[in-house]
Amino acid sequence: MSLVRLNIKGISYSQTQNGAYALILSEVDGERKLPIVIGAFEAQSIAIALEKEIKPPRPLTHDLFKNFADHFDIVVKQVIIHKLVDGVFYSSIICERDTIEEIIDARTSDAIALALRFKAPIFTYKNILDKAGIYLKTQKKKEATTEQEEAVIEELLAGDDKESVAPKLSEDFSKFSLKELNEMLDQAVADENYEKAAAIRDEISKR
Amino acid sequence: MSLVRLNIKGISYSQTQNGAYALILSEVDGERKLPIVIGAFEAQSIAIALEKEIKPPRPLTHDLFKNFADHFDIVVKQVIIHKLVDGVFYSSIICERDTIEEIIDARTSDAIALALRFKAPIFTYKNILDKAGIYLKTQKKKEATTEQEEAVIEELLAGDDKESVAPKLSEDFSKFSLKELNEMLDQAVADENYEKAAAIRDEISKR
Repeated sequence: MSLVRLNIKGISYSQTQNGAYALILSEVDGERKLPIVIGAFEAQSIAIALEKEIKPPRPLTHDLFKNFADHFDIVVKQVIIHKLVDGVFYSSIICERDTIEEIIDARTSDAIALALRFKAPIFTYKNILDKAGIYLKTQKKKEATTEQEEAVIEELLAGDDKESVAPKLSEDFSKFSLKELNEMLDQAVADENYEKAAAIRDEISKR
Repeated sequence: MSLVRLNIKGISYSQTQNGAYALILSEVDGERKLPIVIGAFEAQSIAIALEKEIKPPRPLTHDLFKNFADHFDIVVKQVIIHKLVDGVFYSSIICERDTIEEIIDARTSDAIALALRFKAPIFTYKNILDKAGIYLKTQKKKEATTEQEEAVIEELLAGDDKESVAPKLSEDFSKFSLKELNEMLDQAVADENYEKAAAIRDEISKR
């Protein structure tokens, strides 16, 4: 299976769905975006790593991980989102010490938070992007993401968000038909409601 | 300075103060407790590690850290809460690989979450316990903590808490005199409101 390189496009935060953050990845050589619903803590950790200027007073858990790895000369070489089952993305972090490579299972949110800190490239397999990728109007999207990214970063760093530590989507999509779901997916994407889009996409992937 | 061994007594969750969890440590050879206010994510990670039966479907960040260390034969030997400044506890994790020891700065919440996973002992310095330790009626406390521990674990694992990712105490204690604060501290402890007790104790330590 061929690997596809991904960039981090940003984090989208839903005002309507408590605790739902969508990490938006985009393929480097294409138009597709991969929205992944993550928890508030991981969203915060990724948002802070994206904002070069922001230095938390004490190391976050992923910063501690990086310091720990540095102390023992271990690098995270790359991150691969290698599996999508029932709407859950599974990732591996490929680490190296003295040319000895270790592949470690990780939640995608942790893997991305670490990839940012190690400046490691992020990949997924073509079949996963084919299954879960969403097309977005790039220009429109770019502006939107930037705003949303700033919004979520402000919100997170204000430290006054009322989010759950685990993402939770209030809507239940299981009752809809595949046709309805695909229509809803298009609408959600049109509305730039990426958490909803991701949730619908995950429901579709279960069918 | 002499080291004092600490046990993890439990996590206390405040219904009244959103996002405030108190990790309660107790000295092994004494009666004093050390309440430390931590965030919801760290509270969840510690609570899950305390509950032997509960195995999250995907590795939490601290579980990933443990797997990562295991892959490279690194152990966390001990955790030392070595500094208390303006109500913030600073910790170090002492790690070892091939008899080479590394001391890494960490937030106390991360250090404890890792100590649990590596079965590493937790220590603090006598002067920190003298400064921030609180006396509790052990028997009463024990029952209370167990209930509160179960409560917080249920709450956290239900995943429907509305907590902030960062602990935040609504009350401002800076306006009170030292005498008033000490009275409020005694009352908070009597009420088993450990988050409030910790916040007051932290305010006192600033004076």
